[in-house]
Amino acid sequence: MTDTSFLHSILSPEQVSTTDADRDYHGTDWGTAAAASPPDVVVWPESTAEVSAVLSAATERGIPVTPFAAGTGIEGNAVPAHGGISLDLTRMDAVLDVRPDDLQIDVEPGVIGADVDEAVAAHGLFFPPLPTSGDMATIGGMIATNASGKRTVKYGKVGDWVREIEVVLADGSVITAGTRARKTSSGYDLRDLIVGSEGTLGVVTRATLELAGRPERTRVGRATFGTLADATAAAADLVSSGVDVSAVELVDELSARMVNDYVGSEFPEGPTLFLEFQADHGLEREVEFCRAILDAHDPVAVLLDGETDPEEVWKPRHELADAVRAYYPDLESLHAGDVAVPIGSFSSIVAHVHAVADAHDVPIPTFGHAGDGNVHFDVLVDPDEEGAVAEAHEIYESIVTEAIDLGGTATGEHGIGQGKREFLPVEHGDSGVATMRAIKEALDPHGTLNPGKVFPE
Amino acid sequence: MTDTSFLHSILSPEQVSTTDADRDYHGTDWGTAAAASPPDVVVWPESTAEVSAVLSAATERGIPVTPFAAGTGIEGNAVPAHGGISLDLTRMDAVLDVRPDDLQIDVEPGVIGADVDEAVAAHGLFFPPLPTSGDMATIGGMIATNASGKRTVKYGKVGDWVREIEVVLADGSVITAGTRARKTSSGYDLRDLIVGSEGTLGVVTRATLELAGRPERTRVGRATFGTLADATAAAADLVSSGVDVSAVELVDELSARMVNDYVGSEFPEGPTLFLEFQADHGLEREVEFCRAILDAHDPVAVLLDGETDPEEVWKPRHELADAVRAYYPDLESLHAGDVAVPIGSFSSIVAHVHAVADAHDVPIPTFGHAGDGNVHFDVLVDPDEEGAVAEAHEIYESIVTEAIDLGGTATGEHGIGQGKREFLPVEHGDSGVATMRAIKEALDPHGTLNPGKVFPE
Repeated sequence: MTDTSFLHSILSPEQVSTTDADRDYHGTDWGTAAAASPPDVVVWPESTAEVSAVLSAATERGIPVTPFAAGTGIEGNAVPAHGGISLDLTRMDAVLDVRPDDLQIDVEPGVIGADVDEAVAAHGLFFPPLPTSGDMATIGGMIATNASGKRTVKYGKVGDWVREIEVVLADGSVITAGTRARKTSSGYDLRDLIVGSEGTLGVVTRATLELAGRPERTRVGRATFGTLADATAAAADLVSSGVDVSAVELVDELSARMVNDYVGSEFPEGPTLFLEFQADHGLEREVEFCRAILDAHDPVAVLLDGETDPEEVWKPRHELADAVRAYYPDLESLHAGDVAVPIGSFSSIVAHVHAVADAHDVPIPTFGHAGDGNVHFDVLVDPDEEGAVAEAHEIYESIVTEAIDLGGTATGEHGIGQGKREFLPVEHGDSGVATMRAIKEALDPHGTLNPGKVFPE
Repeated sequence: MTDTSFLHSILSPEQVSTTDADRDYHGTDWGTAAAASPPDVVVWPESTAEVSAVLSAATERGIPVTPFAAGTGIEGNAVPAHGGISLDLTRMDAVLDVRPDDLQIDVEPGVIGADVDEAVAAHGLFFPPLPTSGDMATIGGMIATNASGKRTVKYGKVGDWVREIEVVLADGSVITAGTRARKTSSGYDLRDLIVGSEGTLGVVTRATLELAGRPERTRVGRATFGTLADATAAAADLVSSGVDVSAVELVDELSARMVNDYVGSEFPEGPTLFLEFQADHGLEREVEFCRAILDAHDPVAVLLDGETDPEEVWKPRHELADAVRAYYPDLESLHAGDVAVPIGSFSSIVAHVHAVADAHDVPIPTFGHAGDGNVHFDVLVDPDEEGAVAEAHEIYESIVTEAIDLGGTATGEHGIGQGKREFLPVEHGDSGVATMRAIKEALDPHGTLNPGKVFPE
């Protein structure tokens, strides 16, 4: 066991724990990509100075530090693969300043996404790119994976709404990356380098986020199609036609059936798009524009009236995660993946997922942020069955490499973590990975920060 | 003179020149920030392979390489401060592919901005962030400085519309940074690191750009105010209120007078906002929303009727650059600067520019992309007058440091180049600059690419 007694000279007793319960909790995440790997010790810093002191002392001693927040990642991003220190940032959860005139808020990294919305609602503002897990995930975690959500199709990713961040580097030095101005051409863009780097280059200790005016009106809808190809083609057409839609989510037939089974409902059991529109005015025109595009793809059921309870309209989408877990109690989602492709290739990647599922006779519920060309899927197998684990991996590899071949990416929003390391060179080539490694070595020469992530070992 | 004969084994004779005319043309830009500094030789590569061969051979020999395109920069960004090779990319000017379904276009770096618009117009698309110089500047140059333009207030910067770039590094290796998918969390964001790095980290040889649907309707307008404070407050209010406006440009009283003098016109001679609205529908509502905000700041003249010839409405803004040059024939704009601040501080920075102008009794026409909190100014002095050069620099320093103190940036869109190197540590701190230097050394250890830029020497 690593000697971590030096931490007691930096932090107070209630900020350091080596109990099994704390170590176990910080040794896993929500996914299956990483084996459980508890840290030697968990610390809860409460200031930038404390984060800096921990990092510089750990780097001096060659002890790994893995930042941890809500633990909602699924690729093992925050699982301390090499032990050492789990740096839990959830006690740094202050809203520091709200500046409605600048359309900005300053927060500490442990602030929950939904709490940002709550802090700015009184000013008529909101934080648009919140992920589905936004009522649990922290801003720091969202920045670490460059997360996104259902409204990314209209508003962009978390990274697009980060203006300035304070970052502690591995040697304990503190930098401010980005600017509070709406644009800059000053020096290298360290902000976007840190965003999405999964805690391997630095630890974000403060963030200035941009906000948007809360739209006065919201309308939701859904459309079910006779074939999956119709549904995905309709989603792609909506995006390339420029309809002002704030969410376009896909749920495939298997997923829809799982929800009905789980909820005891009778939603249409076909491939379905879930839609949301947000605007101050002109909503009806966008909805009618949308309806015309949907109609061109022979929908079997369209609900766009604006009368039905919005929660009821979207319920199949909202219940999906739990429904998948309940439907096949003996099967496990060994690869809960997320890939993204250019929108013109969205139909191809979804069709590929289903073709692979059919070829292997393995259920793969398929859903996701269709408007971003972003597909989520669960490869469900019985891990105790002979060959099942290898087959699940073969399927997973086929889907991810197909997405890359279509000009897309191995991960649209979950990050590489441990689960997707093998695909980094497939997507970025050896020279691209070598460039990333050179940056890692330049910023963290001793490899203190979150080792065992992003790069293949 | 550096021996550059090796270039003839890589390129054909018409791709290499050492004539005085070619060297002189590549030794300056549009600004006054950099002294003329001709390269030893100019080369015009026509392929990625040729760029790669030139870079690897130059790095082996320790010869500087400075990428050059349209030469429209103003901070000396593309002036070869240390001689060597000027790498002119203007012959790599092919539109490679237009994919309307993906809302994307692939281009070589030498393509002129306006030619992108022309290539996609038939598909009802356009490239939103074009700078004012978009009919001369190249895509490669825009990427190098992370340029922006009048519509950035609505659509964002050039970098926001770059999806994937092919980049040749100093050692000649070629990477693809970014992805054609609309979002990614895969590895480090090399794309945004290269964007805005002014050719000091790599040379962009291909870019996939995102496009937007061309709005069906455009309306322009302008509003003149009794005081500068009213004009800047109105601009800030427009942005923080969320009016859907596609351009908010400021021209101050001195600038307006210069235009009248130059054109022989009788435009209102007060601080004026120039406005543009773009939408498929609902334009009138946004215009009326805008009018209400303008009215709250006591405008003396508002032209928003949509009847007047658009070119006539915006003429004072369009003629401004030439008018400034003509108004004081004996004075020179020693510091044509560009700073940006959070929108809530826009009034403060503009007031500061005028206060400094008054205190020094130096004319400083002030204008710019108000909606982005981006101010442009010319410090006009007679360089032959004793002390004038030092005074101009003192004024310049006061304005740039004030912008940084207000939470802003030393440059919103022109880059650091040579002219703003002294402000890099002021804005980013010593640790920030050290981090940037570490990245520079990791990617270009021999310092081949565009030496003498960005970093203070």
